[in-house]
Amino acid sequence: MVRIVVLGQGLVATHLAVGLERIKSGELEPVGVPLERFEYEIPVKSLEIVGSFDVDPGKVGRTIYQVAKDMLGSQLPVPQSLEAVRVERGIHAGSVKGLIPGARGLDEDLGMEEAVEIVADRLQHLRPDVVINVITTERAEPFETLESVRDRVRRGLVSASQAYALAVLRYAEREARRVALVNAIPAPLANDPVLVSMFEEAGSLLLGDDGATGATPLTADLLEHLAERNRRVLSIAQFNIGGNLDFLALTLPEKNIMKEKTKSSVVKDILGYDVPHYIKPTGFLEPLGDKKFVSMHIAWKTFNGLEDELVVNMRINDSPALAGLLVDLARISYSLLERGYKGTVYEVNAFFMKNPGPREAPNIARITAFQNMVKLLQGLGALSTGLPGRRA
Amino acid sequence: MVRIVVLGQGLVATHLAVGLERIKSGELEPVGVPLERFEYEIPVKSLEIVGSFDVDPGKVGRTIYQVAKDMLGSQLPVPQSLEAVRVERGIHAGSVKGLIPGARGLDEDLGMEEAVEIVADRLQHLRPDVVINVITTERAEPFETLESVRDRVRRGLVSASQAYALAVLRYAEREARRVALVNAIPAPLANDPVLVSMFEEAGSLLLGDDGATGATPLTADLLEHLAERNRRVLSIAQFNIGGNLDFLALTLPEKNIMKEKTKSSVVKDILGYDVPHYIKPTGFLEPLGDKKFVSMHIAWKTFNGLEDELVVNMRINDSPALAGLLVDLARISYSLLERGYKGTVYEVNAFFMKNPGPREAPNIARITAFQNMVKLLQGLGALSTGLPGRRA
Amino acid sequence: MVRIVVLGQGLVATHLAVGLERIKSGELEPVGVPLERFEYEIPVKSLEIVGSFDVDPGKVGRTIYQVAKDMLGSQLPVPQSLEAVRVERGIHAGSVKGLIPGARGLDEDLGMEEAVEIVADRLQHLRPDVVINVITTERAEPFETLESVRDRVRRGLVSASQAYALAVLRYAEREARRVALVNAIPAPLANDPVLVSMFEEAGSLLLGDDGATGATPLTADLLEHLAERNRRVLSIAQFNIGGNLDFLALTLPEKNIMKEKTKSSVVKDILGYDVPHYIKPTGFLEPLGDKKFVSMHIAWKTFNGLEDELVVNMRINDSPALAGLLVDLARISYSLLERGYKGTVYEVNAFFMKNPGPREAPNIARITAFQNMVKLLQGLGALSTGLPGRRA
Amino acid sequence: MVRIVVLGQGLVATHLAVGLERIKSGELEPVGVPLERFEYEIPVKSLEIVGSFDVDPGKVGRTIYQVAKDMLGSQLPVPQSLEAVRVERGIHAGSVKGLIPGARGLDEDLGMEEAVEIVADRLQHLRPDVVINVITTERAEPFETLESVRDRVRRGLVSASQAYALAVLRYAEREARRVALVNAIPAPLANDPVLVSMFEEAGSLLLGDDGATGATPLTADLLEHLAERNRRVLSIAQFNIGGNLDFLALTLPEKNIMKEKTKSSVVKDILGYDVPHYIKPTGFLEPLGDKKFVSMHIAWKTFNGLEDELVVNMRINDSPALAGLLVDLARISYSLLERGYKGTVYEVNAFFMKNPGPREAPNIARITAFQNMVKLLQGLGALSTGLPGRRA
Repeated sequence: MVRIVVLGQGLVATHLAVGLERIKSGELEPVGVPLERFEYEIPVKSLEIVGSFDVDPGKVGRTIYQVAKDMLGSQLPVPQSLEAVRVERGIHAGSVKGLIPGARGLDEDLGMEEAVEIVADRLQHLRPDVVINVITTERAEPFETLESVRDRVRRGLVSASQAYALAVLRYAEREARRVALVNAIPAPLANDPVLVSMFEEAGSLLLGDDGATGATPLTADLLEHLAERNRRVLSIAQFNIGGNLDFLALTLPEKNIMKEKTKSSVVKDILGYDVPHYIKPTGFLEPLGDKKFVSMHIAWKTFNGLEDELVVNMRINDSPALAGLLVDLARISYSLLERGYKGTVYEVNAFFMKNPGPREAPNIARITAFQNMVKLLQGLGALSTGLPGRRA
Repeated sequence: MVRIVVLGQGLVATHLAVGLERIKSGELEPVGVPLERFEYEIPVKSLEIVGSFDVDPGKVGRTIYQVAKDMLGSQLPVPQSLEAVRVERGIHAGSVKGLIPGARGLDEDLGMEEAVEIVADRLQHLRPDVVINVITTERAEPFETLESVRDRVRRGLVSASQAYALAVLRYAEREARRVALVNAIPAPLANDPVLVSMFEEAGSLLLGDDGATGATPLTADLLEHLAERNRRVLSIAQFNIGGNLDFLALTLPEKNIMKEKTKSSVVKDILGYDVPHYIKPTGFLEPLGDKKFVSMHIAWKTFNGLEDELVVNMRINDSPALAGLLVDLARISYSLLERGYKGTVYEVNAFFMKNPGPREAPNIARITAFQNMVKLLQGLGALSTGLPGRRA
Repeated sequence: MVRIVVLGQGLVATHLAVGLERIKSGELEPVGVPLERFEYEIPVKSLEIVGSFDVDPGKVGRTIYQVAKDMLGSQLPVPQSLEAVRVERGIHAGSVKGLIPGARGLDEDLGMEEAVEIVADRLQHLRPDVVINVITTERAEPFETLESVRDRVRRGLVSASQAYALAVLRYAEREARRVALVNAIPAPLANDPVLVSMFEEAGSLLLGDDGATGATPLTADLLEHLAERNRRVLSIAQFNIGGNLDFLALTLPEKNIMKEKTKSSVVKDILGYDVPHYIKPTGFLEPLGDKKFVSMHIAWKTFNGLEDELVVNMRINDSPALAGLLVDLARISYSLLERGYKGTVYEVNAFFMKNPGPREAPNIARITAFQNMVKLLQGLGALSTGLPGRRA
Repeated sequence: MVRIVVLGQGLVATHLAVGLERIKSGELEPVGVPLERFEYEIPVKSLEIVGSFDVDPGKVGRTIYQVAKDMLGSQLPVPQSLEAVRVERGIHAGSVKGLIPGARGLDEDLGMEEAVEIVADRLQHLRPDVVINVITTERAEPFETLESVRDRVRRGLVSASQAYALAVLRYAEREARRVALVNAIPAPLANDPVLVSMFEEAGSLLLGDDGATGATPLTADLLEHLAERNRRVLSIAQFNIGGNLDFLALTLPEKNIMKEKTKSSVVKDILGYDVPHYIKPTGFLEPLGDKKFVSMHIAWKTFNGLEDELVVNMRINDSPALAGLLVDLARISYSLLERGYKGTVYEVNAFFMKNPGPREAPNIARITAFQNMVKLLQGLGALSTGLPGRRA
């Protein structure tokens, strides 16, 4: 069994919990879980969510079942088995300030140092193999030096994601246990050399940053498509608008910047030259809900100097797409831990993440990244060889 | 120098001729020529168009310069150097019947057997290394057996493309010279086992079929993108409409079928399962000219059973896109011939062609196909190793 | 009370039945019913479906409730009150040949003349004020002369819609009652001068043809938008693809032609000049279901000779859109009958129909047509004056 | 002859100048000039640009010909006749601060009071009938009271548009001449009751504000289209991105707000209820140039509670579209002045402007507005009656 703790019981974590149980009961096909086209050494039914942290007063103290009923009940069947896990109070660090009224974290009651220790205590109790960070997009500055870490914690100058990362490390240390943290939000964890080396030191894994589900990986593949034909891209415009909490968070300018950074790096990394572009999560429109609208315009020069253009419009369910990836990230983490991998693993990040760590690692076409990752996993014996599709 | 003869002096051949000269004179960057991101052993300036065949009474007997002036003069500068080559009468076999009034081929005057011999004579005179077939889409049935070839020629039951292929073989045979034929139209040449084995026998190359420039390779990469996330595709609709001769030809039902076949195979080959789809070159709309409009709708099931959808709209210049690919197909052919390749070469077809030969070979994601081809060419020492972009 | 009989218990009739009952019970807002923004003299709750005819063996003899459960049960709540009406066998005339296995009409058992009389008998029993034709798109040729009618019936050379129209006339005649027939399909009834004059003679109403719900009225308004700025339209491409029975019917070429005709007339009528266009219901794609996909490309010349372009993509539920219009068509018909209108009424057709009768009447921008119709109805005292929106 | 002075020799004014001359010489059809479908009492050839003001050091002192050569020379032929008019220094008031290096206005040299007088002097010399304001979007606050005007001028607290408006009034006053000012930018002039009453007092006309060329009037007509079918709009997202100076100006937040205001009012005015919407000029992307990209997503509820959606994507040349409207605004202004109209005229603003004055006047569907305006002009005898299209 792979034991999972989630940080942030929002839409992504709730889709993950509901989807996992539905797949395990045979009610749902494992659509949206990339490696289910192959045979993976760890079946989906071995994954178990054993704990959850949040700071929303409407969630803390309730079961995942109750939370899921509220969030998804009108849209999907919610399995009773989710009554087994209760959402616990976690770390706030102001991450949802102005977004969720009444949000309160352990840090606000006890100070940050103490809060980190208490989360570590709880992790010792819950014994996760993999911790998944899906809290709301927050502003975070990487640690400059190993020495600055303790000081910033003492002065409360860490983001919630960073505090959780330190709690995971404390837990790994105390138990002398190798653990994985998967960071699916834009906060720079796997892109922070200090944190990566701390995880390496602890024999643990830190994958991230920012799960790539929608427009960014598609843009990557479209740009690679153009690059391979040596078409000269002239401009790229990309708009995103949605109605979930993450889009609401992005109306706060300092969070928007976090997202924009991870989205823009894709252009130069893939094309090999820079192009005027406007790539932004643009707006919040409540009625769109979790099904965001994406619009993209790309213009390029073709042979003989003429101009072509491409417009892409998508309606995609934001959270379930990420939840499906997290299923694989959890079991890949487990497989890698078992085989002694530590620090971060670019081959995995490159496919799953918008801003793949380690820092300075390039964004590559997702189709290429996928093949590299498959090769790695097949080499390790974690993934069946041969053509995919057998288990469809 | 790589000597090239083109079959069909339409928009593609004319863009190729104009673009090549403009690149050679330094007036135009080699945008749209895939391998120009790397360093290729044969520079673009070594390519030379030395002959051209057509059956249009408005083209036969005139220079490529005059033809290009008429077709592209209002849009692009036409280099004087194109006055060196004159369009000769080629084989018709009814391929533009009902499309070009007054079209007449050698076959109509002399019978097909004699026409093939005369084209072979002319090729002996022109001494091409590579012959490129870009005549208008025509109906063609593959040869069943080696024995049937001679009989069908005698009875005039071959398409223009097939007759040209036989002329190329005659030329190779008579001169004991290894030649390449690149088939960029849907007629099944590289998908015809009989023809492929005849080329193999002659130590010559037959690449094809149907140059992949627009919606089909993009669809391939989009489907691969979805497949790698294990999203379950529910339906695919794809419309194409344009105003060039090829779209006009497709209003004739038997030609439309040729195109539809090559376009549909992509779905099952890449996804591993079949999906209800409507993928068709749909209509002719004269004012769109060579800049076709493509509209695509793809719906899929994501994690937790929800539905997403994607709409792609493109305006792309049809002919220059193919012309850019032909530049590379010509020099790759030359490199392969020099190294003893014969018959057909799937690794090259898989990237460049909508319906890559040999018959039964699968359509794969173009990004994957590109990498395989690059690996092959780097292995042969034809292509620089290292990252692309150096010569941008 | 306005008594309604529907011809063809397909998706449109079923949405109409379900929607009407849900509005009447207060469960549903009257969204999609145009005049509900105003105050109409006949409230929606006065409308009652009292009879239904079909030839599908899976429907004849069952209640509308049972049929609706099958067709919409997974998507919508189906009111029990629909158990009151049973679907009766109607006229086939080959209208769903090749589409619905086992379809059989009264005409196949008894001959057409007798079938018309029996439907008239049933109408005498059901006593409708308004009969609504929503059978599947069928091929129909207008009557040339009054004299030819009887002859064509005798020889079985009438379409199902025409036969139903004659049955409605027989019923009106026998009962000396003024009745309305609303033709929401492309068969030319209100565009057939012979039929219109027969209805006029009978003091009855014939509205039609082909309810305008999707791309056609939107195209009309977009073209008017361009015309009013004197932009010169260069080309129009419009694709429609869907998965309901009507799209399946359109894969049969002779039905496709019926649709194409009504869709194309809009261009010249509104712009005042003809434009190369491709406007077609293009294809059938079963998974799209009743929610069709529409893609449109319009290019035009703007001031100073430059070119602009517009792409429209829609996903619209085909049948409910028409059902909403039928609610108003039923009560408008009733109001007009009460005030002595007979024959056909262009002011109403111009807004509601793709091919507004009488024959030769132009297609105008829908926004204009709406205002003209509102003015007519306000003049008659049927519709509240003042601004709309009061009852929203 | 109608004498025109333009304020701001940017792309719009330059397209206007070039297009007018090309139409007058017969080289260009009057496409994009709305009333040219009819017969207007003042032919286009009677319009003459007699003066131009700007503050760009690259333009002041040069002829319109020279400016046009620079701006449009690579795209369009520029008539020699434009050498007759030289661009003069106008009023800056910081309107292009941060956008055009070195911009300097009369106000910076002489103070605002004096600058207004000097512009009035120049107008006395140029004797325009119509002054057209097409300076770059600037921030402006309406005058609160008549008394505040003089004071704000003295303290330099007026925008460039306001200062120009006062100069026009001074000119009208001094010459006892009735003049029209057409305000095609978002600054609230026709929406400022104080300014409107000053123009009324002077027997002059003030039309505005913000010429409606692109997404806004189309949105208006699309919403009216939905409203007339009583579809319940759920959300509206609209993005605009372009590469001209106006888009660059909108990257400065206080200018963006000016645009957003005029764009949003359309929703409630037409639908009769408010809808969550995101309607913004979103970004600047230099390579798009004057041909902006617009993307729109509208979702609504249809009959029986189901949801439909519409996506619109446009590529439109921003400036020529407005220039075409200005041709008609100039001659309509002249006709209205001649017939004694003064203050502002809603019937004209409602069609041509994004934010039609007077203040509080509603935004209505453009198709409706067009008909109202045509009726007014036909009533005055300025416009031919009968169907349009005669002169096409």
